[in-house]
Amino acid sequence: MQYNIAVIPGDGIGPEIITEARKVLDRIGTKYGHSFLYTEVLMGGVSIDATGVPLTDEALEIAKNSDSVLLGAVGGNVGQSNWYSLPPNLRPEAGLLAIRKGLNLFANIRPAILFDELKGACPLKDEIIGGGFDFVVMRELTGGLYFGERKTVEENGIRKATDTLVYDENEIRRIAKWAFEIAMKRNKKVCSVDKANVLDSSRLWRQITKEVAKDYPEVELSDMLVDNCAMQLVKDPRQFDVILTENMFGDILSDEASMITGSIGMLASASLGDTKLGLYEPSHGSAPDIAGQNKANPIATILSAAMMLRYSFDLEQEADQIEAAVKAVLKKGYRTVDIMSEGMRLVGTKEMGDLIVSEL
Amino acid sequence: MQYNIAVIPGDGIGPEIITEARKVLDRIGTKYGHSFLYTEVLMGGVSIDATGVPLTDEALEIAKNSDSVLLGAVGGNVGQSNWYSLPPNLRPEAGLLAIRKGLNLFANIRPAILFDELKGACPLKDEIIGGGFDFVVMRELTGGLYFGERKTVEENGIRKATDTLVYDENEIRRIAKWAFEIAMKRNKKVCSVDKANVLDSSRLWRQITKEVAKDYPEVELSDMLVDNCAMQLVKDPRQFDVILTENMFGDILSDEASMITGSIGMLASASLGDTKLGLYEPSHGSAPDIAGQNKANPIATILSAAMMLRYSFDLEQEADQIEAAVKAVLKKGYRTVDIMSEGMRLVGTKEMGDLIVSEL
Ligand SMILES: CC(C)[C@H](C(=O)O)[C@@H](O)C(=O)O
Ligand SMILES: CC(C)[C@H](C(=O)O)[C@@H](O)C(=O)O
Repeated sequence: MQYNIAVIPGDGIGPEIITEARKVLDRIGTKYGHSFLYTEVLMGGVSIDATGVPLTDEALEIAKNSDSVLLGAVGGNVGQSNWYSLPPNLRPEAGLLAIRKGLNLFANIRPAILFDELKGACPLKDEIIGGGFDFVVMRELTGGLYFGERKTVEENGIRKATDTLVYDENEIRRIAKWAFEIAMKRNKKVCSVDKANVLDSSRLWRQITKEVAKDYPEVELSDMLVDNCAMQLVKDPRQFDVILTENMFGDILSDEASMITGSIGMLASASLGDTKLGLYEPSHGSAPDIAGQNKANPIATILSAAMMLRYSFDLEQEADQIEAAVKAVLKKGYRTVDIMSEGMRLVGTKEMGDLIVSEL
Repeated sequence: MQYNIAVIPGDGIGPEIITEARKVLDRIGTKYGHSFLYTEVLMGGVSIDATGVPLTDEALEIAKNSDSVLLGAVGGNVGQSNWYSLPPNLRPEAGLLAIRKGLNLFANIRPAILFDELKGACPLKDEIIGGGFDFVVMRELTGGLYFGERKTVEENGIRKATDTLVYDENEIRRIAKWAFEIAMKRNKKVCSVDKANVLDSSRLWRQITKEVAKDYPEVELSDMLVDNCAMQLVKDPRQFDVILTENMFGDILSDEASMITGSIGMLASASLGDTKLGLYEPSHGSAPDIAGQNKANPIATILSAAMMLRYSFDLEQEADQIEAAVKAVLKKGYRTVDIMSEGMRLVGTKEMGDLIVSEL
């Protein structure tokens, strides 16, 4: 089979980690007789530099016509880069929001896994980690405060800014369904997180989630307030299987969830919609400080490529193989600097990619 | 001097912990020749049961006319209590929101302190804790999504819910000033947390905070995105001195901050406005499961009473004494069950109160 992949290297360490992910995909392609065709697409700061905008219509069109999108990272150093003197809708991150919306990728899946080999990097005490944890945050990605109306006005000399948090039942239902579907393939527990003691949108969220739950009698649904969830992630992350939440809460909680693993350089993510077309990217950012130094950890991007094989192309076995190769390399003691610890062998971005390829 | 304190025992463990705080206040009163006069006020579930609403106008009036308010906790078990079948604006927590707004308490201060004696309870690894941490979260409390317009409508058979996040520059300026004032008395660092890459309200927040900073040249101001802050609290809490943020972000981050201390039963909070009148309450909730069992930790409430002496009555020395007494009791090895560890002496709510009184 032939798969058309729109590849967005982006900014910072993006190009380096994408190179390694492509090496891994190519190896899998050779091994299993698939051909992966890549079309490079500009997005973020590099797109601003080349075209004046963070995502051109043509770039979005290429992404739309591809079988899936693989993204490195976008954005620069806010303090240092000229990109951030532009109006907000022309900054690098606006490209990311535009592609999510443009491709209707309303479901963001971020796994938070504590890799056995990397327990040492976990900031939580051993009593809390126990046998480890493995849950996913399912974040709504194209609604809420991110895409509601906003305005800043001056009234009687007083500046005033407004953002709007809107959800309709269809938006909630489709992401809730995704969460229950994923839970069915996992441990059958969905924890829906909201602020129903304050927000109307959260009360609707809770109501619709309960309606959707009726179609999944095997899945246990619980509700949790967002402030409590921020605590429970630190206190007892093992209680979670699938966390389902709206866009802004999901932004905060999924980052907290990645940090409690201690290995954000290892965490993949997928953004999905109603079709097979998805966008896959590491959970971490563009790390401009270490860009071009062969220091970045390519594993999150490589695991994102594995997620792409699984979710967009239904290549289960190929995805499993990549994940197993990553584990094998870790087991042999190879580490990039972000996950380095005593007694391990320090390698660079390229070497880590090569090691994973050689396991395949 | 005579001080009129409106006391709100509230629900769950509220009455028990308030009793202990009053014992401590009375002891301080006798020792220093102050008289504290208490007027009990109904709020939360008990008020619903007695009056049908979570806060009556008369109750709010008493609070307004007092020198300060000491609160236990409000709310019950959502699954079990009838209070939660009422419309949202009649539930226990609505009383809390109403008193905050009614007294114009726009500045919520929640200290996150790792007590030396309780390091064992901290969920974070020793390498991260290091010599401990001590910072405050300064949360805006009467604006943003909590008090913006909201509505739920049905359009063409589709239910749709909207909440509004609004801030004007005056609301931001007054809380920012508080944060800088507090920082001046601490380590002179303010970290302002927002989501300026997405929200108009956050961009205004950042702008006004920078304007306010000009009046405090000694204080170092930094900005941080809320998702990053959720990570940094787990990764390196020692970097913080004063975290300044809007209402909803502050709700989430201050709870995360309390949890990383591992001893939420120890954490006080103060809600302040433009006058000396403040509301003081523990950071934890009403814990209905252990109510009436002499199990609750009264220390957070006792330390909240100390904050009241400091911020509302300018009784610095008296506040210091209470804090020292709490430390002394911990040092002697006494613990309530929530902070119990091997080799320590388990005591109940009352005994913990008595022990602290006897140190005074
Ligand atoms: C860059 C930013 C707009 C984005 C978001 O808030 O969604 C990022 O934090 C993320 O989580 O992917
Ligand atoms: C009870 C609830 C409305 C309240 C809030 O969200 O402000 C609580 O979580 C708090 O932080 O004091």
